[in-house]
Amino acid sequence: MPHFTMEYSANLSELVDIGELCNVVHDVILATGLFEIGAIRVRAIRCDAYAIADLLSQNAFIDMSFRIGKGRTPSEKTSTGEAIFEAVTRHIASLFATPHFALTLEIREIDAELSWKRNAIHPRTRQIGS
Amino acid sequence: MPHFTMEYSANLSELVDIGELCNVVHDVILATGLFEIGAIRVRAIRCDAYAIADLLSQNAFIDMSFRIGKGRTPSEKTSTGEAIFEAVTRHIASLFATPHFALTLEIREIDAELSWKRNAIHPRTRQIGS
Amino acid sequence: MPHFTMEYSANLSELVDIGELCNVVHDVILATGLFEIGAIRVRAIRCDAYAIADLLSQNAFIDMSFRIGKGRTPSEKTSTGEAIFEAVTRHIASLFATPHFALTLEIREIDAELSWKRNAIHPRTRQIGS
Repeated sequence: MPHFTMEYSANLSELVDIGELCNVVHDVILATGLFEIGAIRVRAIRCDAYAIADLLSQNAFIDMSFRIGKGRTPSEKTSTGEAIFEAVTRHIASLFATPHFALTLEIREIDAELSWKRNAIHPRTRQIGS
Repeated sequence: MPHFTMEYSANLSELVDIGELCNVVHDVILATGLFEIGAIRVRAIRCDAYAIADLLSQNAFIDMSFRIGKGRTPSEKTSTGEAIFEAVTRHIASLFATPHFALTLEIREIDAELSWKRNAIHPRTRQIGS
Repeated sequence: MPHFTMEYSANLSELVDIGELCNVVHDVILATGLFEIGAIRVRAIRCDAYAIADLLSQNAFIDMSFRIGKGRTPSEKTSTGEAIFEAVTRHIASLFATPHFALTLEIREIDAELSWKRNAIHPRTRQIGS
């Protein structure tokens, strides 16, 4: 944790640099100061088959899911969600100029009792940070 | 919302038209009358690596996840799940004729407090509807 | 159910045999004795776009999600998670020898009231088992 996954319709591949969008989200997560850099994992999953809204071929979506460990306050979670959503919206503003795009974000907490983690990146990034 | 995601084993690619299956699900969701057309996002994710049941190469699965906003009654949620499951089962009846296929569906509600959305499709589809 | 999904960064494709890793997880799930063989569905989703930790190109992750039906005790769930996590850690020990890899696992229960399933594999595997 934190885990950020975007599912997107494949027709966006030619309109959006998805790797760059991952970087945008990464930077916002880091800038909140609520998450350690070594733990940030943003990724995207391309969906080749889909059926969106009124089925026009231009219809497209990005659906973002942010899974975090417990421990942040409600207002920290809200401000994090808002910051990510605003940054993504700004980055892909051209899509919102069309009547064919929809964006969503959901934050969900991970149950510490039923989760496990091992991170070999932390020792390196903590060293750099010290 | 509503978000409908199917994960499926890649060996189904030659047996099922996954895009058509997305359309089948889309139409059932719309026919319930509980969801606005402009918000429906059905998609499929192909899983190239898998290990299913007793590991026969013909073993295959589709696992469907339906995430919806809060506000529907328990019976509305139940009838929606049943309608989708029945339609998909009917559409891929040939798979159930083999001893190698399993289908699942889970409905999960999205927490309104921790979700964000922006939809540029609604203004267009609402205009058509009026 | 049970459904086991791994999301992984695409740069692992050349370092790990993901299909073999699915088999490793499959065998641990089966060995717990808590799940019927005909219901086990392990799969992996490759993420081609990502932004991990300090963005070094070698940074990589596997994030595992295990969705199970209700009915197991807390200690059964804990021991299952531990067994899977240990087996995967052992199988990909070489990755942990680098300062570029992170592994996570989350177990989540599926609500029986809002889920549906149909399994054509069970009759065959139950027959073999009897």
